[in-house]
Amino acid sequence: MSTAPISDSSRAAVEQLVRESVYRHLGISGAKQGSAPNPLVVNSSARHCHLTQDAVEALFGKGHQLTPMKWLYQDGQYAAEETVTLVGPRSRVISNLRILGPCRDFNQVELSYTDAISLGYKVPVRQSGNIAGSPGCMLMGPNGFFEMDEGVIRAAPHVHMAPEDAEFYGVENKGFMKLRVGGDLGMTFDRIFVRVSPDFKLEIHIDTDEANACGLGPDSIVELVK
Amino acid sequence: MSTAPISDSSRAAVEQLVRESVYRHLGISGAKQGSAPNPLVVNSSARHCHLTQDAVEALFGKGHQLTPMKWLYQDGQYAAEETVTLVGPRSRVISNLRILGPCRDFNQVELSYTDAISLGYKVPVRQSGNIAGSPGCMLMGPNGFFEMDEGVIRAAPHVHMAPEDAEFYGVENKGFMKLRVGGDLGMTFDRIFVRVSPDFKLEIHIDTDEANACGLGPDSIVELVK
Repeated sequence: MSTAPISDSSRAAVEQLVRESVYRHLGISGAKQGSAPNPLVVNSSARHCHLTQDAVEALFGKGHQLTPMKWLYQDGQYAAEETVTLVGPRSRVISNLRILGPCRDFNQVELSYTDAISLGYKVPVRQSGNIAGSPGCMLMGPNGFFEMDEGVIRAAPHVHMAPEDAEFYGVENKGFMKLRVGGDLGMTFDRIFVRVSPDFKLEIHIDTDEANACGLGPDSIVELVK
Repeated sequence: MSTAPISDSSRAAVEQLVRESVYRHLGISGAKQGSAPNPLVVNSSARHCHLTQDAVEALFGKGHQLTPMKWLYQDGQYAAEETVTLVGPRSRVISNLRILGPCRDFNQVELSYTDAISLGYKVPVRQSGNIAGSPGCMLMGPNGFFEMDEGVIRAAPHVHMAPEDAEFYGVENKGFMKLRVGGDLGMTFDRIFVRVSPDFKLEIHIDTDEANACGLGPDSIVELVK
């Protein structure tokens, strides 16, 4: 499992550009990628949480504001310096659970299946924001506890894209497409959920279980197909 | 990660038979599976090791014989009652590493990528038995230590099958085929290595990372294709 919450995204974009250039020279697949409007970036998201401002204040103190530590690939999103401790249903604990900012209007913890098993959880696979009926947890910060009644999920693999990307790939918002990853552990993710917004940069998010399964690395050959 | 070293294999076979029957009634895919000579069983292998008799004696005492605890799906193979402690390169430890018997003529430890990362290892993806140049480790048992100079690998996903299965699927020994897994985390393993022997029963082995990535469970819809 990667230890950083999110890989270095600007580096990822540069690496992908280099990779696509190399593929073109080698004549490897990705003919379509070559003419794509934007580089394809695949990032693996380690466990993290999104919190409301209320939750942040309960955990870190009245008026506390999250401090950006590292900017993510999507504009305005960041890994915060702040982390919390998650206490699961059997009093098992995950320390240093990274908070991603800015604050949202709901609380959500995203775990890999491996994380969930180690905590003794049964967590559903969900799209971000769809947390009804999911299990809760207790979060612990330097200023106190915050109880979530629900919101612990395993995030389904998804792709963020702008309308121009959707048009290029021939897909629609809330549809599904496929991600092929090459190599010894070659694998096709058959259900990558599509999220389209003018605010999005083209980026696929898979979790650490999925990245470990296919051996995703900076030199992986990746291809997004309808 | 599953805690048992191998799932209950006879139950897996029965479940698969039931599943295939249900699919046929529902008219779901697997038309080809329906006429396959043998049921398709997919098992996830948690971390384990194969040892020589010499290694067993160094770890458990002169003349010690492994004791079968649970018979596996492949005839004659078993999870032993004996486990060892693995000490990795940074003195990090995995306890209760299950030994699979009977003894072989080489020593091999099979870890998931998640296991390897937690130990601080960089382990190669290999087919069983192909251990040249892989990293080693120290094993610890009740009678002493046993040092392996090499043999720590991540096992590549593979399928065991009899010649009649190979003929049915149209594949050859040491070729590759695909495994489709349905569900919310639908995934296609594009490189399942084929191992054919008259001694083999049809069974796919993936590791816990791969099983967690696709959410493999007893109700998963699985399909093996060329």
